[in-house]
Amino acid sequence: MATSRTECQALDAQDPLRSFREEFSLPPGIVYLLGNSLGALPRRTPERVARTVETEWGVHLGASWNTAGWWDLPQTTGDRLAPLIGAGPGQVLAGDSTSVCIFKAVAAALPLRPGRNVIISDLDNFPTDRYVVEGAAQALGAYEIRDIGSPDESLDEALGDDVALVLLSQVDYRTGAARDMAAVTARVHAAGALMIWDLCHSTGALNVDVGDADFALGCTYKYLNGGPGAPAYIYVAPRHQEAARNVLSGWHGHAAPFAFESHYRPADGVRRFASGSPPVLSYAALNASLDIWEGVDMSEVRAKSQALTSLFIELLDELHPGLTLATPRDPGRRGSQVSYRHPDGYPVIRALADRGVVGDFREPDFIRFGFAPLYLRYVDVHDAATALAEVLAKELWRDEKYARRLTVT
Amino acid sequence: MATSRTECQALDAQDPLRSFREEFSLPPGIVYLLGNSLGALPRRTPERVARTVETEWGVHLGASWNTAGWWDLPQTTGDRLAPLIGAGPGQVLAGDSTSVCIFKAVAAALPLRPGRNVIISDLDNFPTDRYVVEGAAQALGAYEIRDIGSPDESLDEALGDDVALVLLSQVDYRTGAARDMAAVTARVHAAGALMIWDLCHSTGALNVDVGDADFALGCTYKYLNGGPGAPAYIYVAPRHQEAARNVLSGWHGHAAPFAFESHYRPADGVRRFASGSPPVLSYAALNASLDIWEGVDMSEVRAKSQALTSLFIELLDELHPGLTLATPRDPGRRGSQVSYRHPDGYPVIRALADRGVVGDFREPDFIRFGFAPLYLRYVDVHDAATALAEVLAKELWRDEKYARRLTVT
Repeated sequence: MATSRTECQALDAQDPLRSFREEFSLPPGIVYLLGNSLGALPRRTPERVARTVETEWGVHLGASWNTAGWWDLPQTTGDRLAPLIGAGPGQVLAGDSTSVCIFKAVAAALPLRPGRNVIISDLDNFPTDRYVVEGAAQALGAYEIRDIGSPDESLDEALGDDVALVLLSQVDYRTGAARDMAAVTARVHAAGALMIWDLCHSTGALNVDVGDADFALGCTYKYLNGGPGAPAYIYVAPRHQEAARNVLSGWHGHAAPFAFESHYRPADGVRRFASGSPPVLSYAALNASLDIWEGVDMSEVRAKSQALTSLFIELLDELHPGLTLATPRDPGRRGSQVSYRHPDGYPVIRALADRGVVGDFREPDFIRFGFAPLYLRYVDVHDAATALAEVLAKELWRDEKYARRLTVT
Repeated sequence: MATSRTECQALDAQDPLRSFREEFSLPPGIVYLLGNSLGALPRRTPERVARTVETEWGVHLGASWNTAGWWDLPQTTGDRLAPLIGAGPGQVLAGDSTSVCIFKAVAAALPLRPGRNVIISDLDNFPTDRYVVEGAAQALGAYEIRDIGSPDESLDEALGDDVALVLLSQVDYRTGAARDMAAVTARVHAAGALMIWDLCHSTGALNVDVGDADFALGCTYKYLNGGPGAPAYIYVAPRHQEAARNVLSGWHGHAAPFAFESHYRPADGVRRFASGSPPVLSYAALNASLDIWEGVDMSEVRAKSQALTSLFIELLDELHPGLTLATPRDPGRRGSQVSYRHPDGYPVIRALADRGVVGDFREPDFIRFGFAPLYLRYVDVHDAATALAEVLAKELWRDEKYARRLTVT
C-alpha cells in the first residue's frame, strides 16, 4: 500500500528543509513540477532587483561598477556557486549562457590535448551541448565528433588515444538518469582525455562534486532559482588555469582592463574566462537566490529529492500500473526528475496542467516532472501523482483542446 | 562672447527634445556626462522590470516563454533596435555581450572570404574589439591581424587582396572622432573585403545608417539606456543571412529548437545568431527604454548632440583657453562626446565630480564627457563647462585626496 496523503503530511512536518518553502513565491493552487526548467521566484528577489535598478543604477549610476561591486559580479557570484558543485573559491566564473560556456570550455580544453582530434559527445545530451560541439569542431580545426549512446557502456571503446575531450551531462534532461561523475571522469582520464561536465540538470538538486573534472558548466535558472536566463557558470580546474585560454577574449577577462592596453593579456585565474559586460540586473536576481542557498545543506537536498521522486514513482506504480517509467528506479542513479514515456504525452501534460499540476513534455514521448526540494512538499507529490493517475485513467487528455501545440513548450 | 546661461535656458525652451528629460530619473544636483558609458535610468523601467519579475516569472513561471514572448526576445528586441541603426526587420538580433557579438561577427565573416587571411583592426579601437580579434585570429585559423592608425589614412595601403575583413568603430571611444561609415565601407568593399562596424559609441546618439555594411554590432547600455550590461546586438546584412554561420551554434538559434534534434540545423535569417537562453530581466529593462526610443526622431538627436558638444567646446575655448581638445572641431566628424587631454586627467575628473559634474578618465590622459541628447539640457552643458574651467583655473585637482585611484574608473 503506497503512502497516504496523511502520511505525506507527517513527512512534511518532519522535513528538515520545510522552512525553505516560505522563501518562495508560489502561485496558489498549483503544484509546480517545472523547477527543473525554470525555478520559482524567491520572495526576496523583487526587492533586490528593485534596489539594483532604482538605487545602484538610478542613483549611483556608473559609480556602481565600483561601489556596488558590479565589476566583480562574475567572480563573486561564481565564488558563491562554487560550494554547490564541490568547488572552491577562484574556480567558478558566472556569466554568459550555458551554450556560450560550453563553447568556452571546449575551446579551452582542445589545445590542452594537442595531437588529439576527437570530441566525444552523447546524442542523448541536451541538444545545445551537441550543437555547440558541432560549431566548435568545425570552426576550431579538423575535429571529429564521436557519439556514444546512453548509458555509457560504449564509452570505453570510444576512448582511444585520439580523444581530446569528453562532454557529458551529469543528469539526462529527458530520462533523469544520473551518471557517476567520479567513475566516468576516472575512465576518461585513464584514456588521457579531458572531462567536461554539463551540470545544468543537477546543480541545486544533487550533492554535486566536480571532483577531478577538468571543466564544468551549468545554468542557474533551474533548481537555483536565479530567474529566466540567469547567468550560467563555468568551472575551470586549478591545474588548468595557467594554461587554459578563453577564446572569447574580451576586455572583462584582461589582466588590466582599465589600462586599455593594445593587446590581450589574460587575467590570472578563472577571471580570464570573462568576456563582456555582465547583465547586472540578472545577476541581482541570482544573488538574491544565492542568499537562500547559503543556508542549505546539499546532502539534505539530495536526500529529500530522492524521497520525493521515489514517492512519486511508488504512487504511480499503485495508482496507474503499467505506465512506462523512463527514469532509473535506483534513487542513486537518477537526478531530481521523474519521466515517463507516453505516446500522447503532449495532451497528457496539457490536461494535467488544467488540473493544477505543471510538468512538461519533451520529444518524442517523454512527460517530465521535476522536484525542487526547497519548495515542494510530500503532499504536493501526492496530489500530483493522484491527478496524473486520474488524467490517465479517465483519458481526460483525449479532449481535443489539448492536442493543439503551443508555440513553445 | 560665448553663450550665456540665460541664452542656454532659451535654447532649452526651444529644444524639440526637451520633453524627453522627464522620462529619466536623474539624481538631483549633478550634471551626468557619462551617458556614453552607462545611460540614465528611464522612469518607466522599474515598473517594467518588476512586472517581469513578479508577474511573468513569479506567477506565470515557465509559461511566460510563450505568453510573455520571452522566447522571441532576441528577435523582437532586435527589430526594435533596427530603426536606430538604419536597418530593417529581421536584420538585428539582441543578445549576449558586445565582446561575444564581435566574436560571432568575425567568425561568421571569415569563411565568407576564403583564401584571405588578414583581419584589419585599429589600435585605437575599443580594446575589447582588438582583444576579441586576437582570440578569434588564433583560434579560427592562421589569421593575421593588420593594425592601422587612426584616422584611416593608412587604410587604403593596408587593404590588399589578402584582407578578409575590417573591423572598426564608428566613434572612437577616447577622442570621440566619428568615421564616415559609407565612405569607409565603400573603400573596404572595393578591395573585396567585408566590413564590420562597432556601433557601441554611436547607437542612440548619431543618426546611424549601417548602409552597405556586412555586419555590425553594438551595445544598448550607453545612449540607449538599457541598463548595466544590457543585451548587445548584432546586425547581419540580408545578403549574408543564408550563408553566414553562427559559430556559437546553441539551441536558441536552431531551426526547430523544441524538436530536440540530434544535430544542429540553423534557423532561417538572423535568428540563427542566437545561442543560449536570453537574460530576460535585462531584456525587460532594455525594452522599457525602447518604448521611449520609438518616439524619437534620430535627426533631432544628432542635431542636438552636435549643438551640445559644440557649445561645450566653445565655452571652454573662452573660459579656459589652451586646453588640448582631442575631439574634432568639425561637428560632422565627431560623435556625442568631447574629450580633452590633460596630464593630470584623473584627479581633474575626481575634483569635477566633487562639484557635481560626472565625466570620466581614460588612459593615458583623456578626460571624457558624453552628451546624451534625450536628457541633457543646454544649461547643464553651461554648468559643466563652468565647473571644469574653475577646477582647472584654481587647480582644485591638486588636492591629494583626488590622486588615489579607485578600483575601477
